[in-house]
Amino acid sequence: MTERIEADYLIETPIDPAQAAQAMAGEQSSGTFVKVPGETPELHERSAARVEALEVIETVATPSLPGGAIADSYTRAKVTLSWPLDNTGPDLTNLMSTVTGNLFELNQFSGLRILDLRLPKAFAYAYPGPKHGIAGTRALSGVSNGPLIGTIIKPSVGFNADQTADLVRTLAEAGIDFIKDDELQADGPACPFEDRARAVMRVINDHADRTGKKVMYAFNLTGEVDQMRHRHDFIRDLGGTCVMASLNSIGLAGFLALSRHSDLPIHAHRNGWGYLSRAPMLGWDYAAWSKFWRLAGADHMHVNGLRNKFSEPDDSVMESAISLLDPMFAEKPCVPMPVFSSGQSAVQPPETYRRLGSADCIYAAGGGIMAHPDGPAAGVESLRDAWDAAIAGIPADTYAKEHPALAKALGKYRT
Amino acid sequence: MTERIEADYLIETPIDPAQAAQAMAGEQSSGTFVKVPGETPELHERSAARVEALEVIETVATPSLPGGAIADSYTRAKVTLSWPLDNTGPDLTNLMSTVTGNLFELNQFSGLRILDLRLPKAFAYAYPGPKHGIAGTRALSGVSNGPLIGTIIKPSVGFNADQTADLVRTLAEAGIDFIKDDELQADGPACPFEDRARAVMRVINDHADRTGKKVMYAFNLTGEVDQMRHRHDFIRDLGGTCVMASLNSIGLAGFLALSRHSDLPIHAHRNGWGYLSRAPMLGWDYAAWSKFWRLAGADHMHVNGLRNKFSEPDDSVMESAISLLDPMFAEKPCVPMPVFSSGQSAVQPPETYRRLGSADCIYAAGGGIMAHPDGPAAGVESLRDAWDAAIAGIPADTYAKEHPALAKALGKYRT
Repeated sequence: MTERIEADYLIETPIDPAQAAQAMAGEQSSGTFVKVPGETPELHERSAARVEALEVIETVATPSLPGGAIADSYTRAKVTLSWPLDNTGPDLTNLMSTVTGNLFELNQFSGLRILDLRLPKAFAYAYPGPKHGIAGTRALSGVSNGPLIGTIIKPSVGFNADQTADLVRTLAEAGIDFIKDDELQADGPACPFEDRARAVMRVINDHADRTGKKVMYAFNLTGEVDQMRHRHDFIRDLGGTCVMASLNSIGLAGFLALSRHSDLPIHAHRNGWGYLSRAPMLGWDYAAWSKFWRLAGADHMHVNGLRNKFSEPDDSVMESAISLLDPMFAEKPCVPMPVFSSGQSAVQPPETYRRLGSADCIYAAGGGIMAHPDGPAAGVESLRDAWDAAIAGIPADTYAKEHPALAKALGKYRT
Repeated sequence: MTERIEADYLIETPIDPAQAAQAMAGEQSSGTFVKVPGETPELHERSAARVEALEVIETVATPSLPGGAIADSYTRAKVTLSWPLDNTGPDLTNLMSTVTGNLFELNQFSGLRILDLRLPKAFAYAYPGPKHGIAGTRALSGVSNGPLIGTIIKPSVGFNADQTADLVRTLAEAGIDFIKDDELQADGPACPFEDRARAVMRVINDHADRTGKKVMYAFNLTGEVDQMRHRHDFIRDLGGTCVMASLNSIGLAGFLALSRHSDLPIHAHRNGWGYLSRAPMLGWDYAAWSKFWRLAGADHMHVNGLRNKFSEPDDSVMESAISLLDPMFAEKPCVPMPVFSSGQSAVQPPETYRRLGSADCIYAAGGGIMAHPDGPAAGVESLRDAWDAAIAGIPADTYAKEHPALAKALGKYRT
């Protein structure tokens, strides 16, 4: 822990990297392009950002991004900057302007990406962090061991409230632990939020009355602040146990207005993450980005999945997931439950478990459940089997001999 | 105007671009990676996104972004998709998940960028748009013609409240129209918001009492929703005429909670814009991005400046500025005042005016005012001279013969 804010960056620069790092530090604190009269040595000492570390990695012949200064070669380096806490105080929104504001377009860089972030303890006192996290999610879903087996309502959008509830009934009867709205389904006239919530919660409550198992459903309440708070209360009053919000669509101040108000776990959806991260020398690494939302109160955070249907490599998926388990503060770890999804089936659990080192996650599959040869119940069972085997250290094929749902899933989904 | 939502994209794809466009449309509406049982022809007709236009531009040999499918060549094309309004209703936050959610990482693309957006009229009724815009800003600042000549407090951070107010006095006496906090200056313990506001407004109100001219000061109230509303009221009650918020730091739901509450013009700061835009084949064009904030109520929007100190080319700056003047709806144009800044001096006004076709802007300079050989008052005068000449169609050098402040500025800043 430190009394200064620290951020790590990957930079690529046509100039001396030490000079480039000083330019970043200046631009994001008391300096500017030119020396200004008010920047006295005392002010500089009090307010300036500092370059704490600089490690050159390699040089490349062509710039990753256009528009910067031109040179014969471009140096890539890892840089750590620090800021005095007194510049902004423990304030997440202004922290964002400080560590990721007007610097990606600086002409001294042909690449700039934030990698990670370390915050003074004052931030831990100022923000809620996840109110439920892993333990609370387990308590509310009644899943005490292994992952929550989850799925997403598909088609993403187009079902009305009753059609959604019908699918929820099928999934509940199949033994699912967790269901979420697709992020495209919110409060459109074709499927109003409150209608959907009533119809779905009727099914979930009935199922809980009969079986003792209450399926956790993440209702997408993304909207304006008052709408989100109202929808949260509506879900809570119906006996619901989870709400979902699209982080990039509402932003940090809106999310905080929800999270400070919320009694329920917040399922934090990262849609839009691609534009923040897919250019390797620009934007955000997940470890840095997720810390804003973890501290702000995200209980579940999406990390994609192994062999997913998107462009993200497996190593990146696992780095993201593992970063979530790293405590932000000793007194307040702010550890949310990682959510794996996209192209998942009974095939990936052994590797996911081995690389994560934990079964504290939501493991969501669509086709991996609905398209199982013996139907959705066998699909859910095959995922549980796969995780049970992984946790017990038994090879999937060995376990599959006594577990037919797993055997059929491996036959179908292994390609 | 249309009853469907339309968005234009630039794509780069290793597959047939028509197929790639269909994949985008499917993923962002009722489709998914595989055919799902619930996606009936009726549901598809009701809810699916459509490819409205596709125009192939060129093919390239190497992919702009990593992680997608591999091919011998990659086709770039412009694509227009449309969605039924009923999927989300007129809802800006969920619109963002729809048009810029989980699609930038689709494996069928080695590049994907949103270019522009057209919305059904229902959005115009659902959102406030700028409450003050150009006319309101002119009324409150008393500048009825030409740009508001503005500047930014520098050093960006490090001054206490009294030091800030001292600089404001110098600038007010120099004849400035508009001053803004730097986006790094918010409510840190070294310069608390309310102390700064009181000290600055004392100077501004005194100056107004003496001269009749009230300088517009954009106080950076970036923070949580309740804080922003409180700070807004505090500024209004002190007689202030503008507040500023960092859009990417607070997000859309937080901004709407402010704008629906606000009585004052909102100066919308785009810091962080670099990570959204600097990779040419990823992220956002300004025209698309700014429409969210225009409709949500931004009164002033930053567009950088000609020959700026960042990596953005002049054409991009002018395209951004011009896009802001394009009405979003006939009944509700949502036109904010463009804000030019970064490396500006008396040199750039003729070209800025010629290319914008208007003097409805805030024209902010730092060194271009403070470093004028005859001091800040001559700096402000030189900027006004430059704009007066441009508007009158008189070459700057001709005008400079009778206007010594302009003459000295051209001597110093023309390089």
